[in-house]
Parts: sequence; structure tokens; C-alpha cells
Amino acid sequence: MHHASDILFTLFIVFVAAQIGGEIAQRLKLPGVVGEIAAGCVIGPSLLGWISLDQIATGTPLDVLAEIGVVLLLFAVGLETRLEDLKKVGKVAFVVGVIGVLVPFGMGSVWAHGNGFNWDRSLFVAAAFVATSAGITARVLQELGALQRIESKVILGAAVIDDILAMLLLGVVVSLQAGGSFNASHLLLVLASAVGFIAVIGWGGARVMRWNSNWLERPLGPHSPLMIVLALCLGLAYLSTLFGLAAIIGAFLAGMIASETRQQHTLEQQTKPLLALLTPFFFVITGSKIDLHELASADALLMLTVVTVIAIISKFVGGWLGALSLGQRSATIIGFGMVPRGEVGIVVATLGLAAGVFDNRIYAIIVAMSLLTAMVTPPVLAWLLKRGGGSGDTVDVPDVEG
Amino acid sequence: MHHASDILFTLFIVFVAAQIGGEIAQRLKLPGVVGEIAAGCVIGPSLLGWISLDQIATGTPLDVLAEIGVVLLLFAVGLETRLEDLKKVGKVAFVVGVIGVLVPFGMGSVWAHGNGFNWDRSLFVAAAFVATSAGITARVLQELGALQRIESKVILGAAVIDDILAMLLLGVVVSLQAGGSFNASHLLLVLASAVGFIAVIGWGGARVMRWNSNWLERPLGPHSPLMIVLALCLGLAYLSTLFGLAAIIGAFLAGMIASETRQQHTLEQQTKPLLALLTPFFFVITGSKIDLHELASADALLMLTVVTVIAIISKFVGGWLGALSLGQRSATIIGFGMVPRGEVGIVVATLGLAAGVFDNRIYAIIVAMSLLTAMVTPPVLAWLLKRGGGSGDTVDVPDVEG
Repeated sequence: MHHASDILFTLFIVFVAAQIGGEIAQRLKLPGVVGEIAAGCVIGPSLLGWISLDQIATGTPLDVLAEIGVVLLLFAVGLETRLEDLKKVGKVAFVVGVIGVLVPFGMGSVWAHGNGFNWDRSLFVAAAFVATSAGITARVLQELGALQRIESKVILGAAVIDDILAMLLLGVVVSLQAGGSFNASHLLLVLASAVGFIAVIGWGGARVMRWNSNWLERPLGPHSPLMIVLALCLGLAYLSTLFGLAAIIGAFLAGMIASETRQQHTLEQQTKPLLALLTPFFFVITGSKIDLHELASADALLMLTVVTVIAIISKFVGGWLGALSLGQRSATIIGFGMVPRGEVGIVVATLGLAAGVFDNRIYAIIVAMSLLTAMVTPPVLAWLLKRGGGSGDTVDVPDVEG
Repeated sequence: MHHASDILFTLFIVFVAAQIGGEIAQRLKLPGVVGEIAAGCVIGPSLLGWISLDQIATGTPLDVLAEIGVVLLLFAVGLETRLEDLKKVGKVAFVVGVIGVLVPFGMGSVWAHGNGFNWDRSLFVAAAFVATSAGITARVLQELGALQRIESKVILGAAVIDDILAMLLLGVVVSLQAGGSFNASHLLLVLASAVGFIAVIGWGGARVMRWNSNWLERPLGPHSPLMIVLALCLGLAYLSTLFGLAAIIGAFLAGMIASETRQQHTLEQQTKPLLALLTPFFFVITGSKIDLHELASADALLMLTVVTVIAIISKFVGGWLGALSLGQRSATIIGFGMVPRGEVGIVVATLGLAAGVFDNRIYAIIVAMSLLTAMVTPPVLAWLLKRGGGSGDTVDVPDVEG
């Protein structure tokens, strides 16, 4: 009867560490998520070692719980996002997404080339600078109750564009690195299918739900609307990975579709306890991946500082330029909202390590950069939002009944 | 970016199968849990093979999700159970627990001896007949809104006693089988520490919470009472495994402690979505463990039928005798409520297989028996409860404010 005890202990430790970290951060007037990531770093392999590297490897129970946590988080964010709102900011979001990918990719590849990589490899390294991780920003916006602000809509829309472009870029650099030829028609096909997936699901799903969502109540179970949209969330998260996109894009679409139903408010209430239980696993595990040992030299720290500064500035400038039409203050918020990298940077780094493009140190530095951007963003973003910057406009939410 | 996709697909399949199975069962006027277990059997390795044996082995993500699911279920049941109520039915529950262990153990060992096992091994086989799995019954009682009935309190109290005795018995038969001597003083120590754990946590925790639960609101997080009691739930679930008890006993205690707080009603509401998401994993995985191939012979089916009938009758008679003081109808409900075996029977069978006490067929039969008792109970129990049997009394819930 003891088989469950080790994992229960780990779950307990991770959950409690998240609560303590979040509480300390909030007492220090920082977003709770900073404390959760820091708690992960403290209990992780680098410091206390209460959770080991083996326990957070891909496919382990903790990794899966973290994945479910971030999927639910983006689902909940989608639940507060109407398709109409995204359409209103569509152009700005598109420009932010595109420039926000080009600038970091350009600066990243120049830096890498300056550090002795050939161009093929430099582009690979630069790919790790590109993709914004929407989870961190979404959590901060949610903690501050700022999801209805126009800047938030732009950030979320841009994050979708960003994810499509990052996926395409990754495809290109991997095939270049493997010595393959640059196949433009294949790339166009990938692009078209990803855009098609998002358009069909997002637009079609929202229309169906807006037209009639009474059928959600037909099943006999007591929580049938919640169960159906959770199934939709898991299903679309899976489907979006088949189209090469991050799982959280599908989860976000599922939430956005569900936001069109007349059960939207109930669903929002019911989703909160799910986030409370599961998202801490995502942020603690994110923090525990920081490998402090590989960074314990002046050289490595210097390189990490340079890389992180480039990563922050390039993304900020890209987003800021793209959003200038909304005014300086909003552009600043949006630029900074796009800064966190998180898991996608780590995935690129892992691919690079496996392909022999990076050594362990560059790998550790890119991972640490991804996580540092994730650590730096929440306090700055919270400060920017609280000082009353930006237009402060919220997007009108039309009253739609099924 | 594809690493998460396989597990997301599995999560989706399991979750949707649970919903469809539950819906069909409810349309057939059966408890939803029957459909969830059946769905697991259908998508599991025996039939469709959409989830494999490897995916449900101990320590896999699905196994851990199932464990979290049943832990939360018993937590929620505890949340609807006051210590006072259990005290009122304490004597009956104790008698039900004790006789409900002795009769199946006796009948099981006689059957095993009659089938050619020597006495040491027979006692081991019989240990698999003993432990009631509270999860199934608790879910049925909850689905029917019957948790406040006096029979429910007796069943839950008896399940705690039952778990203590089953643990002691298992200790005895394992050491006998290993050729160890019967160490009465060690056994007493184990008994005392388990009883002590339950008494200290249950009684002490409830007193602390009843005295003052305002401190649950002190942390700054938006869901702080929920977060604290969830941490308590995971912590006590882990602690109870250290005392040799099932994790669900600790979770039940945590819920019972939390039921004394003035936030009890909010906590109950917030726990429901957690159950909705996570308990299906427990029941689907339970169902998927049924190995139909080992049972595909007339011999095996006959043996399974005999074993299952013995398991049902012996437990029913034990519980019924113990509860006769509440009247025939209540005793019938209580007797049947104790019938499901589930995971503990499977654990004993696994230990027996590893120790060379059983062959594969007896193993498959004992596992199938455990699951069959779990399948048979819900419809019968639902029918017994709905026909207005039993005393129909509910236990008074005193109004206690912190």
C-alpha cells in the first residue's frame, strides 16, 4: 500500500513550496508567480534537491501535471477573451507578433555569429530567442485583473502569431542544420495548415457556441458544461500539437470558444479551483529547471547577462515598435508583455543540444535566459500596469446570449 | 514542441471515455461511476488498447492522476462528514468494520485451502478478500446526495476501521509467508501508531479548526483557504501512507478537519470542479486494469464467479451482522456498501504474485474479483437507497461557528 507515498510527498512539497513562494512574493508586492518560480529554483536540483532532475524530465508525472496546469491556465485566459475583441486589435497584434519575432531573431543570430558560430548554427541559436511564452504574461495579467485591457488583448493575439512564426522558424533552422534544402512550398503548407487550424477552430467554434450553447446542458451529469469544455480544451490542446503549434494555443482557442456561451460566467468560476490546484506545478517545475551549477563561473555569468539583455531588449523593441500606433505607454506595456520566453526557448535549446549545435554551457545559458526573462517580466509588467500607464481602455464586451 | 502531444491525447481519450461511459450509465439509470469503470475496460488493454498496460503502471502520469483523483474524492467526502457524526455511529461502525473483516477473511481462507493452498498461503489469498475500497461507495453515496444518511456515516467510519485491520492482516500474512515468526508486540505497535495517528489528527485537527479557522484567510492569495486545505490533504494523504494506511484515509481526515471550518461551504463548492476533472481518471484506470484475456476460459470464469460470490456474500454478511442494531433495512444498505474491494485487493494480489504465492491466473481472478465487486455495488446500492430503505435518518449537523 506504499507505492503512492513517494509521489504524494513530492506533490505535497511542490504544492506547499508554491504557496510559500507565492505568499512571500505578494508580501514583497511582487506577482505571486515570481515566488512560485523562485520556490521551484530553491527546492529543485540546483539548491535543496528535494525534487530531482529525473522527476521533472519529459513525460514524468510532475511534467504532465505542469503541462495540464499551463493548458488550463491558457484555457482560463481564453475564457476571458472574446473573438470580437481579438478582431478589433487584430492588425496591431499581427504587427507586434511579426516584428517581435524578426528583431530577436536578427539580434540573436548576429550575437551568435559574433561568438564564433557559423551562420547555419547561428540561426539555430537565434531561434531560441524568438518564441514568447504566453503563460507567464497571462498569469500576471490575470493576477492583476488586467485581462480586459486592450494591451492584454494585443499581447494574447500577438502570442498566437508569434507561436506560428516560431514554429515555422524552428522548422527552417532544423532543416538547414540537418543539411536539408530550404523547401519553401513545404513551409507554406505548414504555415497554411496552422493558420487554417486556428481560423477554422477559432472562428467556426465561436460561431457555433454563440448560435446555441444549450446543448452543453443536455448530458445528465451535474457539471456537464464544464466537462464538455474541458474535453474540448484537452482535445484542441492535442490537435494544435499535431499542427506543430504549442498545446497552449489549442487550450486558448478552446477557452475563447467557451467564452461565447451563456454558461461563460459559471465556467469561469469553476475553472478557478482547477487553476489553483494545477498551475503551481507549472511554475514550480519551470523554476526547478534552472541549473545554477553550469552558471557558476564569471565567464558564464557574463555571457548569460549579455544573452538575457539581448533577449529582453530585442523582444521589447520589436513589440514596442509594432504597438506604437496605440501610443507610447501602451506600446511599452505590450513590448514588455512579450518578453518572457519560458518553455519554447528550452525546447529549442534541447533540440540544439541533441543535434550537437550547442555544448552544455550554451544549453544552460539559453535555458537560464529563457527563465530569467520569465522572472524579470512579472514585476516590471505589474509595475507598468499599476502606475496607470497605457491607454487603460478596456475592449467593450458585447452582450451575446445563446 | 511535440513532446507533450502523446500524453495530451491519452488524457483526452480517458476523459472523454469517462464522460461517455458516465452518460450512458446514467441514461440506463445506473450510477455514473459504473459507466466510467466500464469505459476504462473498453478502452483499456483488454479490448481497444487505446491505453496500454505500460501507461497505467505504478508511478506513470495516469496512475498519479488517478491517485490524485481518489485522494480528492475522499477529501470531498470528508468535507461532508463531521467528527461528531462519526462519533455518534462509532460503536456500530467499529462492529461493522471488525465483523466485516473477519467473515471475508475466514471464508476466503477456507475457500483457498479447499483449492489446494496450504494454510500460510490460504491466509495470504484471504487477505485479498478483506479490505473495502471506500472510493466506489463514497462516489455512489455522493452521486445520490446520500452522504448525510446515518448508513453513510457508518460505512465511512467502518471503512477507516477496516483499513486499519486490513493493514495489520496484510502485515501478518506477509511475514508468515516469508517464514517470519508472528511478532505480536510489533503488531501491537503498528496498530497503536495507526490508531494514534487517526485519533490525534482527526480529533486534534477538528478541535483546532472548530476553535478558530480565521487564519485560513490570512495569506494574500485569492484562494487561500482552499490552498491551505489542499496542502493539508496532500500532506495527510502522504503521512497516512507512512503509518501503513491508505492515502485516502489521510485525505478523508483532512476533509473532515476542513468540514469544521466556517469556510466549509465555499470549500465544498470549490472542490467540485476538481473532482469533475480528476476522479474520472481514477475510475477509468481502475476499469482498464481488468484483464479479460486471462479470464477467457470456462474454468477461469467459473472460479471467478465463485470467488466473486464469496467475496460479496462474506462482506455483506459481515457488515449486515455488525449493523443489525440499526434495523434490517439499514443493515442491508451498510452490508452492501462495504462490498467493493478495488485497489487494496489489487495491491494484495500484486504482492502475492511477486512473492510467488499466486500464479497469473489466480492473480487475474483476484484482480477481476476486486473490480467486479466494485462494478456490482453501485447499481445495487443506488437501488437500495432509492427505494427508501433504511432508517432514512440523517445525522444532525450541529451549527458550529469558528
